[in-house]
Amino acid sequence: MTGSSADARSAVRELERLLAPGRVSAVASVLAEYAHDDAEWADYADPVAVVFAESVDDVVAVVRFAGASGLAVVPRGAGTGLSGGANATSGSIVLSLERMTRILEVNRDERYVRAEPGVINDVLREAVAAHGLWYPPDPASYKISTIGGNAATNAGGICCVKYGVTRDYVLGMTVVLADGSVVELGRRTAKGVTGYDLTALMVGSEGTLGLIVELTLKLLPLGGREERAVVGSFGSLAAAGDAVAAISAAGIVPSALELIDRTCIEAVEAWQHLGLPQGADTLLLAKVDDVGARGEELAASVASHMQAAGALGVERAAEPDEVDRLFLARRLAYPSLERLGPVLTEDVCVPRAAVPEMLARIQATAAAHDVVIANIAHAGDGNLHPLIIAPEGDDAAKARANAAFDRIVDDCRALGGTVTGEHGVGLLKLPGARAELGDRVIRMHRAIKDALDPAGILNPGKAFPG
Amino acid sequence: MTGSSADARSAVRELERLLAPGRVSAVASVLAEYAHDDAEWADYADPVAVVFAESVDDVVAVVRFAGASGLAVVPRGAGTGLSGGANATSGSIVLSLERMTRILEVNRDERYVRAEPGVINDVLREAVAAHGLWYPPDPASYKISTIGGNAATNAGGICCVKYGVTRDYVLGMTVVLADGSVVELGRRTAKGVTGYDLTALMVGSEGTLGLIVELTLKLLPLGGREERAVVGSFGSLAAAGDAVAAISAAGIVPSALELIDRTCIEAVEAWQHLGLPQGADTLLLAKVDDVGARGEELAASVASHMQAAGALGVERAAEPDEVDRLFLARRLAYPSLERLGPVLTEDVCVPRAAVPEMLARIQATAAAHDVVIANIAHAGDGNLHPLIIAPEGDDAAKARANAAFDRIVDDCRALGGTVTGEHGVGLLKLPGARAELGDRVIRMHRAIKDALDPAGILNPGKAFPG
Repeated sequence: MTGSSADARSAVRELERLLAPGRVSAVASVLAEYAHDDAEWADYADPVAVVFAESVDDVVAVVRFAGASGLAVVPRGAGTGLSGGANATSGSIVLSLERMTRILEVNRDERYVRAEPGVINDVLREAVAAHGLWYPPDPASYKISTIGGNAATNAGGICCVKYGVTRDYVLGMTVVLADGSVVELGRRTAKGVTGYDLTALMVGSEGTLGLIVELTLKLLPLGGREERAVVGSFGSLAAAGDAVAAISAAGIVPSALELIDRTCIEAVEAWQHLGLPQGADTLLLAKVDDVGARGEELAASVASHMQAAGALGVERAAEPDEVDRLFLARRLAYPSLERLGPVLTEDVCVPRAAVPEMLARIQATAAAHDVVIANIAHAGDGNLHPLIIAPEGDDAAKARANAAFDRIVDDCRALGGTVTGEHGVGLLKLPGARAELGDRVIRMHRAIKDALDPAGILNPGKAFPG
Repeated sequence: MTGSSADARSAVRELERLLAPGRVSAVASVLAEYAHDDAEWADYADPVAVVFAESVDDVVAVVRFAGASGLAVVPRGAGTGLSGGANATSGSIVLSLERMTRILEVNRDERYVRAEPGVINDVLREAVAAHGLWYPPDPASYKISTIGGNAATNAGGICCVKYGVTRDYVLGMTVVLADGSVVELGRRTAKGVTGYDLTALMVGSEGTLGLIVELTLKLLPLGGREERAVVGSFGSLAAAGDAVAAISAAGIVPSALELIDRTCIEAVEAWQHLGLPQGADTLLLAKVDDVGARGEELAASVASHMQAAGALGVERAAEPDEVDRLFLARRLAYPSLERLGPVLTEDVCVPRAAVPEMLARIQATAAAHDVVIANIAHAGDGNLHPLIIAPEGDDAAKARANAAFDRIVDDCRALGGTVTGEHGVGLLKLPGARAELGDRVIRMHRAIKDALDPAGILNPGKAFPG
């Protein structure tokens, strides 16, 4: 089916016939709003319609209609993705799952929660906390992103360095396949190896193999942790990198080990005047969450590694409010930078030991391409988020930003890294993924995609290079 | 190609031509030895030849020959599998990877090890320990099983209850595909989401999608743990089950929580005279590994939950030798039982809260089918290993054992469990997997299998029901 307006009108009419009132929109402002996620730098086009699914049956109806009509289905949670995985293509149906927000079961004995995909990460966290349970994955978007989107992109976060990523918490799921059939994958038990790990295959597949309509997520006990923060300011990225390496080499696994650079510090100061250390080039923000004397000992050890690496100053906190205060600069970094102009967010992951070298190369890239690049990094994982900032409406600057983006991807690969640590391939990382995966592995992707979605209606063109 | 002896001889000659001397055997005793893994209860047949691969090139040569001749390739590590995943079929080539034993890199900074698949789990553990690193997955076979086999079956173990299973430690791998091509999957960085998680798809696929010829395994720091053991003896399975539930409900995550029943205790006593508690029906064996005061506190809490559940006695230990002594009955349980006759090993996993009910049903099954069933359980995971023992050469007892096996699988499903917690489907769990997965999910398996191995030469008939 082509994208002609007559075809589009007929598709909308048919969707309206299939679904209850209020679930289909073709209003121009809605189409525009749902045409892209937070990766506006990637390609997108207005969809034919936006469907707001409220049930598994709604999802099945849309997939069956798409199969019959040849329209593509672009699934979407809260639209907070940073790689364009939810960007619409011409002639597609955007399938929003944001109204499927029921928490179906919190099982304290087995430590899992079953929920629909549109539940906001933080809502889920609060709901399970009321049962003495904890859902660790904490992407920066946790207050606004959905668990369905988190699973579809295998979202990471700050505490991954100790507690793992979304994949590590998805026990099972209900999925609508490309033929409209509904399958249950995975398990609710603590262990299980019956058949292929199709749950893991679905996690991170960006809706290209099936649409997640229910998730069973593993939980941990809420208690048994005490957060302590240790924040060091450094005169150079290299010194902060040395501290990261020393902490890691000492066998310490912090529950957070974040880095923000001078550009971030200055943006935060310009906006919020936190009184961050004068002359600081880099802040290294660590948390440990071991209990009691052990936690004290680890926090002291982290502080002493920072000092030995030449920290200009080190602050420690153990009270929750003080811990939050010390981490405030980290939380404010991204919004502070967004005030400076459109941000193109990188997401490379390099070996931990290569973090200083990668940061140095990013500085060189910023200079070579005459762009502003701020760095937020999950330093303990080697997962860097260079944020390339271009002034609004400056096309030349945008072109330079794109060139810098490509250069960073190449440098990451040269250092043994991967082109996306936690945001996913979406559209923005298709060229990088092509280089990283190579033809044979791409053929495996294609074979699996064709096996599960032969007509190619599920989010075509995303997640792996064609 | 059929299994005629002329065809078999020609296949052996061709393999000998393709491979270096000493890598191909068609000696009857070798064929018999390599015809099955530790699941002798499942079907098997002598293979045409056993190939002892020493390199990736050897594996490629065998796969290409198999593709050209239509012979099946049955990959094998140490042959310690308990579900028949490595059992040979008529006219197949058994491909042993036990000679590929090189440890290629231990990277302390990034905390990973790269190794060939034939490395014994315990050899790997020792090798990385020398660098201050720890590889947690500890299947009961860890002293004799290979990491390649562990990955192909997604092996579990005792410490899974806190540290996860093999899947959680496989970062990447090199795989020989059905067409003889060699691909690298996954990553060496701490995080990464480039493309589908084909590494996770391969883990647990029992060599049906590709042959693992190299693994990159994630490691943890070796230090920062102190083992304490708490062992309680109980007058009934129900009382021990109550203790498990109470420990879990208290939010304690032990590093081991094992259960052995009266049949195990008696078998151990009859063999080794450990002086286990008189009148004990069930032993519950826990470890916690938190450091210092926190560890002491948790051990005391575990002990008090055992006492509150009616333990006849509780012993605690913190010195390594004493910890080992308290766990000796657990380690000796399986070999003690094997002295009584051929053992058919179950591997069901039920919700933790259903452990007492499942154990009661197993007792009823033993009575109904007039068979001896001993129980070893990873109780903290709900993963039970009923061991069905039949006297050597008693066909009627063997038939009753098989009937009991099926009944246990059915009961596990009725209680919301999965038919294999950590041993894999292999051959023994094909009927159970059929019931658990259902037709639609089996069709997904078939579609993926056909996509990656269209001629069906890689371990056909294993891992999922056809």
